[in-house]
Amino acid sequence: APDLVVVAVPPDVAMEVTRSALEQFPAATVIDVTSVKAGIYEGLTEAGADIARFVGTHPMAGRERGGAVSARSDLFTARPWVICEAEEGRSQRVDSFVRSLGATPIMMSANEHDRAVALMSHTPQLLSSVMAARLSDASPVALSLAGGGIRDVTRIAASDPALWIQIVQAHAEAIGEYLQGVKADVDRLLEALGDLGATGSRSAIADLLHAGNAGVSQLPGKHGVS
Amino acid sequence: APDLVVVAVPPDVAMEVTRSALEQFPAATVIDVTSVKAGIYEGLTEAGADIARFVGTHPMAGRERGGAVSARSDLFTARPWVICEAEEGRSQRVDSFVRSLGATPIMMSANEHDRAVALMSHTPQLLSSVMAARLSDASPVALSLAGGGIRDVTRIAASDPALWIQIVQAHAEAIGEYLQGVKADVDRLLEALGDLGATGSRSAIADLLHAGNAGVSQLPGKHGVS
Repeated sequence: APDLVVVAVPPDVAMEVTRSALEQFPAATVIDVTSVKAGIYEGLTEAGADIARFVGTHPMAGRERGGAVSARSDLFTARPWVICEAEEGRSQRVDSFVRSLGATPIMMSANEHDRAVALMSHTPQLLSSVMAARLSDASPVALSLAGGGIRDVTRIAASDPALWIQIVQAHAEAIGEYLQGVKADVDRLLEALGDLGATGSRSAIADLLHAGNAGVSQLPGKHGVS
Repeated sequence: APDLVVVAVPPDVAMEVTRSALEQFPAATVIDVTSVKAGIYEGLTEAGADIARFVGTHPMAGRERGGAVSARSDLFTARPWVICEAEEGRSQRVDSFVRSLGATPIMMSANEHDRAVALMSHTPQLLSSVMAARLSDASPVALSLAGGGIRDVTRIAASDPALWIQIVQAHAEAIGEYLQGVKADVDRLLEALGDLGATGSRSAIADLLHAGNAGVSQLPGKHGVS
């Protein structure tokens, strides 16, 4: 019998498949890999599953294309892989599994994880889609001007809608908080652009650009190295 | 005396430097490389410059870092370089200059160009800054989750604010139109996220994700090849 079972299925069936894996392998540590963690802990607890053997995890790696044909041997190399807090022996088993794939384990609580990915993964996904949506009725000559900037900003807009609808619905509250901040920034920009002569118009634009500089400089490691 | 003069200076001084280059080199074709084109034609006309020898151009290439130390020999390779419509001999001279640097010349009117870059360059720049601005007060453990998605979406947020304030001010109207579309999408998302049980909530999220898929698939050439 396996000592570790990895449930790698879409979010809408993850709880049910994990519950049955915990039953089918009564001695194993069972992990999942979905992107929202508090919900699956709640679901398993309600279903009366043996939650002590479950460890929620989330590899921060993936591609905008699915299927075996899109697999890459280096997909997890040096990428963060969140492991939710658990009893020490199980944590260590999961830690060594994650390291064996080349990933960097990061321990956090389910709630910490959920807020962090709303910021670092879900909000950028939606903004990338919002930007890409503007291209739908662009002229061919305008599209021919595509440079590295718009390609980078819109790359993840090619992601699978069916998967992302599940993720966004499962995590609506935290995403909503960050999108309120986005809305406030866009409103301030629109006001500034609509009346360039007004006091504060120039500084509203400048403030946003400087805040963007400050934010992107917070990203650890390889950012800016091309 | 040179037959071609390239004025490569920031937008706020481009008109004045171009005007004086046209005076100083009375036999030359003079081009600029700034990112808003209608304004410089208007400014030169008002200043009584010899506008027949001026050709507005815009290389769609650049880096988020300035200075000689950031120079790259392949910066223009296969990148679009807009050339505004001009008298045939001058167009051809500029066309062969642009090709000699490895770029792909694209002919369009100044107004067509200005609308196109508002969509393809300026709006993505501002959305990248809006996303990066959310990172300013993120916790270190949240930041440690940074994957390829947020790095790509926020890469150009590292650009020089002084330059971008000029560009955004010079092109406020067209950028404002696209940002109104952004605002409408964000408002619809917020409404859907705030009431997931409501009729149409799921389809509002799905519509945006599908519009993003459709938009990014419009980008020509190398997109999606990693």
